[in-house]
Amino acid sequence: MSLPETVGTRSTRHSRDDVVAAGLRILDEHGLPDLTMRRLAATLDVQPSALYWHFANKQTLLASIADQIVSRAAPAGRTDDEWNGTARAEAEALRDALLAFRDGAEVVSSTLALGLGADEAQKRLSRAIHRGGYDDRTSEIAAAALLHFILGHVSHEQQRIQADSLGVVALGHSADPLGAVAGDRGREAFDFGIILLLSGLELRAHARTKHT
Amino acid sequence: MSLPETVGTRSTRHSRDDVVAAGLRILDEHGLPDLTMRRLAATLDVQPSALYWHFANKQTLLASIADQIVSRAAPAGRTDDEWNGTARAEAEALRDALLAFRDGAEVVSSTLALGLGADEAQKRLSRAIHRGGYDDRTSEIAAAALLHFILGHVSHEQQRIQADSLGVVALGHSADPLGAVAGDRGREAFDFGIILLLSGLELRAHARTKHT
Repeated sequence: MSLPETVGTRSTRHSRDDVVAAGLRILDEHGLPDLTMRRLAATLDVQPSALYWHFANKQTLLASIADQIVSRAAPAGRTDDEWNGTARAEAEALRDALLAFRDGAEVVSSTLALGLGADEAQKRLSRAIHRGGYDDRTSEIAAAALLHFILGHVSHEQQRIQADSLGVVALGHSADPLGAVAGDRGREAFDFGIILLLSGLELRAHARTKHT
Repeated sequence: MSLPETVGTRSTRHSRDDVVAAGLRILDEHGLPDLTMRRLAATLDVQPSALYWHFANKQTLLASIADQIVSRAAPAGRTDDEWNGTARAEAEALRDALLAFRDGAEVVSSTLALGLGADEAQKRLSRAIHRGGYDDRTSEIAAAALLHFILGHVSHEQQRIQADSLGVVALGHSADPLGAVAGDRGREAFDFGIILLLSGLELRAHARTKHT
């Protein structure tokens, strides 16, 4: 028996892309805790079992959603920029892409931890750094450091946005202790961290050059 | 009517500290999703309503647990170290403290985002940086950047540890794409990020000095 390319009854056939798109909509409207296979099936008007033609389990579906989120990161920088300008543009584009969907950072973070996808995020950062003349290993671990900062920062921003919208932030603590509120201040704090990481990398390379 | 200092029946009276200690044990043994007020009450052999003498809601309880986790961070560095050695020791101590309890990074991260506690983490990093001659504002935002990196990194490590223990990491992806596995490699990747952030800060200060 071959796998069908679509799921559902004749009147509600859905491709794998349709399922991912519906998953993204549920994520953005209701958040990760409410993104269940049951709810997704109901939205697509199919039985939950039909979803398993496309995805072996929920984690695999979340990985495809994470891939979609990461693939939408479109850096504003040009390719003839300096490597550090490119790396910064990639980091900012990734932040924007994560912020574009509720709980985006959490979905990408768990997918990366499980080794199920979203690899593109680190690869793009690593490529940008590699253009600065760093070896493969340094480019990879520096990209991992950038990515951990990005996920930590955006996760904080998204938890904060969510708490604000629910009105659950403690009275008298309305100023964000970490200064990472949504909007301009969040972006400023984010850029500061990215610049520190990239400057640190330059200083390291500079120190090594002096010693040889 | 004044608030009692302990909760429970005559045979099972518990102080606020007892409740936090029991919460920490449940967190470490079963993880954050299973840390419910109902379970905590059952562990202490009291009615759930008795817990509300001490904590207005679950978030307030989690904030006290987060404070406990952060307060256990004991840096190995001496006070006569250079400021950047102290900052690095504080960061490493914080990583150890978060790793000491299952889901530690998640509990501290959400408490910080809600503005309910765990402020000590940023204060200690900020104090260490301030000793390097940086102004208040720079010390604060640099400490926030360090903290976002720390939480992002340890959260990845803890998700990874959890996935490994459940055997749910994808076959063929057993190497962690971000290199942040538990133990020595995790610590090495962590230290690399902290060093980049602190070196970036030094370069920034150096550049400013040259311009004046």
